[in-house]
Amino acid sequence: MASPLRPRAAAALLLLAALPQSAEARSADERHRRGDAVVRDLNNGAPQPVLERLRQEFPFLADATRGYALGEVWSRPGLDSRTRQLAAVAVFAALGETAYMKIHAGYALNLGVSEDELKEIVYLTTVTAGFPRAISASLALSELFAERRAAPDDRLSAR
Amino acid sequence: MASPLRPRAAAALLLLAALPQSAEARSADERHRRGDAVVRDLNNGAPQPVLERLRQEFPFLADATRGYALGEVWSRPGLDSRTRQLAAVAVFAALGETAYMKIHAGYALNLGVSEDELKEIVYLTTVTAGFPRAISASLALSELFAERRAAPDDRLSAR
Amino acid sequence: MASPLRPRAAAALLLLAALPQSAEARSADERHRRGDAVVRDLNNGAPQPVLERLRQEFPFLADATRGYALGEVWSRPGLDSRTRQLAAVAVFAALGETAYMKIHAGYALNLGVSEDELKEIVYLTTVTAGFPRAISASLALSELFAERRAAPDDRLSAR
Amino acid sequence: MASPLRPRAAAALLLLAALPQSAEARSADERHRRGDAVVRDLNNGAPQPVLERLRQEFPFLADATRGYALGEVWSRPGLDSRTRQLAAVAVFAALGETAYMKIHAGYALNLGVSEDELKEIVYLTTVTAGFPRAISASLALSELFAERRAAPDDRLSAR
Amino acid sequence: MASPLRPRAAAALLLLAALPQSAEARSADERHRRGDAVVRDLNNGAPQPVLERLRQEFPFLADATRGYALGEVWSRPGLDSRTRQLAAVAVFAALGETAYMKIHAGYALNLGVSEDELKEIVYLTTVTAGFPRAISASLALSELFAERRAAPDDRLSAR
Amino acid sequence: MASPLRPRAAAALLLLAALPQSAEARSADERHRRGDAVVRDLNNGAPQPVLERLRQEFPFLADATRGYALGEVWSRPGLDSRTRQLAAVAVFAALGETAYMKIHAGYALNLGVSEDELKEIVYLTTVTAGFPRAISASLALSELFAERRAAPDDRLSAR
Repeated sequence: MASPLRPRAAAALLLLAALPQSAEARSADERHRRGDAVVRDLNNGAPQPVLERLRQEFPFLADATRGYALGEVWSRPGLDSRTRQLAAVAVFAALGETAYMKIHAGYALNLGVSEDELKEIVYLTTVTAGFPRAISASLALSELFAERRAAPDDRLSAR
Repeated sequence: MASPLRPRAAAALLLLAALPQSAEARSADERHRRGDAVVRDLNNGAPQPVLERLRQEFPFLADATRGYALGEVWSRPGLDSRTRQLAAVAVFAALGETAYMKIHAGYALNLGVSEDELKEIVYLTTVTAGFPRAISASLALSELFAERRAAPDDRLSAR
Repeated sequence: MASPLRPRAAAALLLLAALPQSAEARSADERHRRGDAVVRDLNNGAPQPVLERLRQEFPFLADATRGYALGEVWSRPGLDSRTRQLAAVAVFAALGETAYMKIHAGYALNLGVSEDELKEIVYLTTVTAGFPRAISASLALSELFAERRAAPDDRLSAR
Repeated sequence: MASPLRPRAAAALLLLAALPQSAEARSADERHRRGDAVVRDLNNGAPQPVLERLRQEFPFLADATRGYALGEVWSRPGLDSRTRQLAAVAVFAALGETAYMKIHAGYALNLGVSEDELKEIVYLTTVTAGFPRAISASLALSELFAERRAAPDDRLSAR
Repeated sequence: MASPLRPRAAAALLLLAALPQSAEARSADERHRRGDAVVRDLNNGAPQPVLERLRQEFPFLADATRGYALGEVWSRPGLDSRTRQLAAVAVFAALGETAYMKIHAGYALNLGVSEDELKEIVYLTTVTAGFPRAISASLALSELFAERRAAPDDRLSAR
Repeated sequence: MASPLRPRAAAALLLLAALPQSAEARSADERHRRGDAVVRDLNNGAPQPVLERLRQEFPFLADATRGYALGEVWSRPGLDSRTRQLAAVAVFAALGETAYMKIHAGYALNLGVSEDELKEIVYLTTVTAGFPRAISASLALSELFAERRAAPDDRLSAR
């Protein structure tokens, strides 16, 4: 059961496409704006709550996540967003990082990836990293699916 | 620079599509045939040399790779082959398993994935698993790209 | 304090021994039956609750665990069950997978492995994977030992 | 906000310095006394609660932690205590072992390391092991900082 | 094809059994003697070449390996040597530590473990840690088996 | 045997200190210059050869290593360079990333860290991540020490 791309997310995507692409010319401010646009795109227009908490005590980490991880890497045009999210879900499942897997699987659903496609990533994990990591990933996905079925449509953002 | 899908690989794909889908009804023989078809599809019609070596001394591991990993997981229809290969490349890069990353990146090129898309997976790895794993993955990809440029077109199979 | 092998588990073991050994001839149904027999053998005749939960949302993962992990690998005759369980406990302790370590340590107790032998596996972990992984494994074992002392004899199955 | 070295910890350090250095001549008793001195030094004069719990059910692990990990390795004179603690915090952050990271970060604060220095270790982790491990480490540090602000001064020991 | 226990190794085992068991009373010298006896037992009466090399530049690490890892942990009587070696091989296979897996698989053969039992540990690894780790372990075992077939009987020690 | 800080490295450090500290105002160019200054500081005034190779085929990864990893994280003033390098060596030893450990251990020597301090980090690794990772780290350090003893003084840079 896929979540179709919502209007606010589509607007964020457009905004993203309009930002300049030259990394050399980009100031820190521009990278942060770009990172925030990626978050809104992935998280149904809402800010990412973990990231907001970091700003208080770990400002450099919050800035690096916005400016580098999201603003430079996650916003690159060379890979479509669905493939990037599915690859990230596969990596976090294989590393046993189920909390991050769950967040990025939620972003994937927001982008229109189906629940069945996420299950396929779990099945792949039995081969790449063994059955325990796959089973843990499946339990985290079950939680995510249940939370989203329980939430009203406009609250389908992380946390 | 992508490798377009070759005729032999396309034929292997068709063969794959013609195999019965019901897991319950499948015998071990059918799963092995399906696994061999996946290998031919990914490896430009050639057998996988590591797998061939395993058959001598580790017959159960060779059978399990063919029958389960390839014949049951890798042949599932719910995920397109390009996404599956890119996810596998991302996982092996993040786990530091560069030898397997290189093999699966070669399969990805055979399926039509571009070198640039593989580079994007490496860039993603800086965020998911840190810079050392990303740099090691980039060195393995460089080797792969060089080997394929040096090889005549009909030898673009693993090893 | 070892748990002697119970009658139901012994019956499951006999059933297991009576199943055909030829992997080639085995259908998916036979592998699943064999996997279910392994579960009953390890889990004091009860089904494995995590596995039951998987059947609803992740049917392929449940089938692969029963059919491949348990029905093909865990049921192989070349290694005695006690050694297999102790090796699995050692692996899950070293990988930091304490939830799976606890489940498999419970299976080991059901097979007649003593608490003291499980403690030796923890001591080994200080050398193979460091003190934090060993300490985490010891805390998980302490929980398991306490749960089993609190449970009536017929409830000594996982979860 | 650094915790200045407390009198009891300073006394433990002096005691430590007075112990004989020759590993060859050291009996198990001496190593254990030395390990206990390291714990008091790091943990504001209090015993380590996890270690105390281990003594009941896992006596060899408790002895090995006191005698080898603390009494032989952690008490070596070739590295100053602050550098050793910061290196341990960096390792546990990179391995995803946040519970141990939190304990050793608390020890570091007791030795006079500042909160800001611990944050720098977290920032380093984005490069060495990726953003998820760094973010998890930052959340564990936030908990630690909050617990210590809530605790009266004489309770700044682990757990 | 198992290597039956050789006379020198059997003598080392006897020597081991004759050493005092009380950890508290043990001096560093006694632990080192015990560790050296474990090495001779496992390595067909020969010293371990890696350990010998460490003595020059990393004396504490050589002493800790002899005194703690081998002299305290590996010499404990609560687990039989075959089970300990098979568990160690399983752990090193799952962690991707193939060099250590090969050394400990050689020790296992010296203790009378069969090649087929080592292969079962590899098959187990597909479930606990995924197919790449299992395949890498199988390649390392193939090398070990070939080296031992090529070596005259009295040279079946590590390196 | 420590390598005292060389004049060129000291000049690079001064250059580093003179760069503006405000992350918000920093352009990509400034971050790259800062990253290059960090490399010269650590690598005895020479460029880092792996980084140079990356520029050809993986330009974004080379830029991210210079601009983010070195220019933003490694150049932060909150942690002294010796502690940062020793923490990085500890992390790479614990993760089994011996190639990166060797590079960063060489940088540490260039900053004036002694060989004995690096050995202490290896001894720590037996506790944090087990004996195999510590032994592998010691072998990599032995190689590094031998290479530097064989090299004329002006060639003490990575590779």
